[in-house]
Amino acid sequence: MTSPHDYAHEHSATFRQNLIDLLKIPSISTLPEHAADVERAAQWIIAEMQRIGLHRAEIFQQADYLPLVYGEWLGAGENAPTALVYCHYDVQPALMEDGWTHDPFDPIERDGRLYARGSVDSKMHVIAQLAAVESLLKTGGSPMNIKLLFEGEEESGSEHIFEFVKRNPDLLKADVIVVSDGSMPDENQPLLVYGLRGIVTYELILTGPTRDLHSGSWGGVIHNPIHALADILSALHNPDGSVNVPGFYDDVRPLEAEERAALADYAPYMEGDWQGVTGAPQLWGEPEYAPHERAGARPTLEINGIAGGHYGTGFKTVLPSKAWAKISCRLVPNQDPRKIHEALSARIAALTPPTIRSELRSMEEGSPGVLLDWRTPAMQAAVAAYEKGWGKRPVLARGGGSIPVVSAFQADLGFPQVLIAFGSRGGGAHGSDEYAVWSMFDKGIATAIHFYQTFAALSEQS
Amino acid sequence: MTSPHDYAHEHSATFRQNLIDLLKIPSISTLPEHAADVERAAQWIIAEMQRIGLHRAEIFQQADYLPLVYGEWLGAGENAPTALVYCHYDVQPALMEDGWTHDPFDPIERDGRLYARGSVDSKMHVIAQLAAVESLLKTGGSPMNIKLLFEGEEESGSEHIFEFVKRNPDLLKADVIVVSDGSMPDENQPLLVYGLRGIVTYELILTGPTRDLHSGSWGGVIHNPIHALADILSALHNPDGSVNVPGFYDDVRPLEAEERAALADYAPYMEGDWQGVTGAPQLWGEPEYAPHERAGARPTLEINGIAGGHYGTGFKTVLPSKAWAKISCRLVPNQDPRKIHEALSARIAALTPPTIRSELRSMEEGSPGVLLDWRTPAMQAAVAAYEKGWGKRPVLARGGGSIPVVSAFQADLGFPQVLIAFGSRGGGAHGSDEYAVWSMFDKGIATAIHFYQTFAALSEQS
Repeated sequence: MTSPHDYAHEHSATFRQNLIDLLKIPSISTLPEHAADVERAAQWIIAEMQRIGLHRAEIFQQADYLPLVYGEWLGAGENAPTALVYCHYDVQPALMEDGWTHDPFDPIERDGRLYARGSVDSKMHVIAQLAAVESLLKTGGSPMNIKLLFEGEEESGSEHIFEFVKRNPDLLKADVIVVSDGSMPDENQPLLVYGLRGIVTYELILTGPTRDLHSGSWGGVIHNPIHALADILSALHNPDGSVNVPGFYDDVRPLEAEERAALADYAPYMEGDWQGVTGAPQLWGEPEYAPHERAGARPTLEINGIAGGHYGTGFKTVLPSKAWAKISCRLVPNQDPRKIHEALSARIAALTPPTIRSELRSMEEGSPGVLLDWRTPAMQAAVAAYEKGWGKRPVLARGGGSIPVVSAFQADLGFPQVLIAFGSRGGGAHGSDEYAVWSMFDKGIATAIHFYQTFAALSEQS
Repeated sequence: MTSPHDYAHEHSATFRQNLIDLLKIPSISTLPEHAADVERAAQWIIAEMQRIGLHRAEIFQQADYLPLVYGEWLGAGENAPTALVYCHYDVQPALMEDGWTHDPFDPIERDGRLYARGSVDSKMHVIAQLAAVESLLKTGGSPMNIKLLFEGEEESGSEHIFEFVKRNPDLLKADVIVVSDGSMPDENQPLLVYGLRGIVTYELILTGPTRDLHSGSWGGVIHNPIHALADILSALHNPDGSVNVPGFYDDVRPLEAEERAALADYAPYMEGDWQGVTGAPQLWGEPEYAPHERAGARPTLEINGIAGGHYGTGFKTVLPSKAWAKISCRLVPNQDPRKIHEALSARIAALTPPTIRSELRSMEEGSPGVLLDWRTPAMQAAVAAYEKGWGKRPVLARGGGSIPVVSAFQADLGFPQVLIAFGSRGGGAHGSDEYAVWSMFDKGIATAIHFYQTFAALSEQS
């Protein structure tokens, strides 16, 4: 009988074509005009789930939110363990004027890569997980029961999945949760992320005069809100890159020696690849932490956007009424989003001069950071699966990004979780000319299959 | 014989109708699709110049620029003095969605005001000057030779008039230049502006990473150019509002006690009207200068626009590649735009951290500030003309804005200049529901006639 790995190998071309087909659907969740495309991508996945033989394939949706796709195969039986696999199939916006060299929704293959919006973040994971399940089901069945939960709102703030998770603990009951989204710094070096940062997001709006003024008539007499915004934002960091908000670090646990040692293997990948990936002239940030520690184990405050006055082409000598900034803080475990909100609000209020009015608006409910125990069987199975799929032991890392659903799974379901991802960090998630690497896609399918096999075997032993 | 003032009084209704007719032509110079309207307005003025009996009425125009209208009457003879009168007949764009309560190009009369785009800025000046000349010519002739130069590109950057002035010193030869454009803070209090600030404009572009990055992956590790921009911009001012660019004030002449005293009459108008006009919570700026001194007699550095990252609706956790700001400096007389450019370049370079690349681009050729001697016969004639036309002695002021053509006249022609304007500061130049005040229009015509009469009389005496 064909092994699932042979099956995957033989059907590699089909799986790749599936990824191309799904990438052609611009399932942009942040733009309301693409709601129908998100819906179309959900229907595409449902059809695929039915084709590969899942027992159930269903869309959970209410009037005002984008489809959550759920599929399950419970053929391994009640005594076999169950995996709940999470991916997201929605994507960030992408425009030619953002720097793309080709249509972001008409995938292009070049030099072993597939270029398209959503390729690495995160449709390659959706298709790889479906391909892994198909390879198991078409070759005698899976040793584990499988539940697939594919979100369509990850890029737009995951507004509704939290309530869904809270309300459906039985539906989502499992022995392990596999969150499949993310990247590794080196195509040949798998990465096992056991920590994620939480996030809180804000909009800071400053108002000076109640209408735009002529800067010739009023410059030097009325405070320009752009000047005040620069002053306030500048004061939010210390010269060494640390955050200058009293109370911000109060609940941050120091990195223990053991964890620093475990993380040390990851250092060379960060040190070695930042220049090629970012093109920045130098590294930046808190000097007492190594870059790989800063990226995952330290909280940050980042200005994600700023605007005010006339910023387009040409020049307008305006002294504007308003200036604003979009601010996000990445939080490490043990930091409370509400306390951070209070600390930042107090800091902004203290920095606002009497010549200006300021308002700090929360953009969405914050999520706390997550630290997964890296000594569980689930983690062992993940290490083994990567070793087999990639031929190399994964290095441990704390991820800098936030997958708020991981916090929700931890809080509301409480099963062990692992993060298994196959993206390339150079793949330009959220940027232009995003790409997936074909060889990583293939290895990812193999790794996913190995994970189910290994976890089932470990469960049987215990 | 009828006096020119009687003539003006008798023909008031015709002059007002002329203004209404000219306002109906949307001569918007900043929008290429209105080029034909600018042309139509120029032709309207030519016809009017011919009707009132000028000896010459001509359009100077090249393929790529908007018409410059020139008219002259040299009937006063070679021994009589000559006035060169500058106005502009082009206007800013105006749309209902900008807050207009009626069609900006279908003038409406209400409560002694005439509402329309271009009414106060600056067609009331065009028509008032034409009406003054007509009143003189129809009642025995003008005591001065008159040259009228009406620009059609003032609102779009005055791109071509500078070269025209350079190339036509003989055509434009005069004993006094009357620049008729501007406003007074109080309808009953004429203002004699004898100083204007110059301007230099820049775009400052900061680049960190060579492409947009995920702020979760790279925040705290790669320097965000928005952070660096906030730091740099914040460092360009001292806490007291003065500009923190070494060398910036080097060539600024201190305000002499005599000039401070002369300017003091203007103080109440600035103090009294800033709150209503701007709605700002407080005044701001260099504490050792009064607001009316800061607005005109001190140089400024203003950020007119800023942008970077994702600044639209929603949130994008981007660590952007670029952030930029639009910067203008208003210069007082004796400051050299080139030295300011060097000083600002050096300051930006010194403030740019090694983690970021910065570029300071000049947006257009700068113009220096202008200080007109307020003790010349031309200025005396202006004071006398206002006194007669308005029944009140004008207060002296240094204007905060820039009229680059005044610098060009000073540099290339060198004749004494005066600024004679009849607008109301509340008239919403560049804003919505712009209006001219009928009584100011009438007084403006009388003031213009008085100016020619007084200047000619003063010339005869000397």
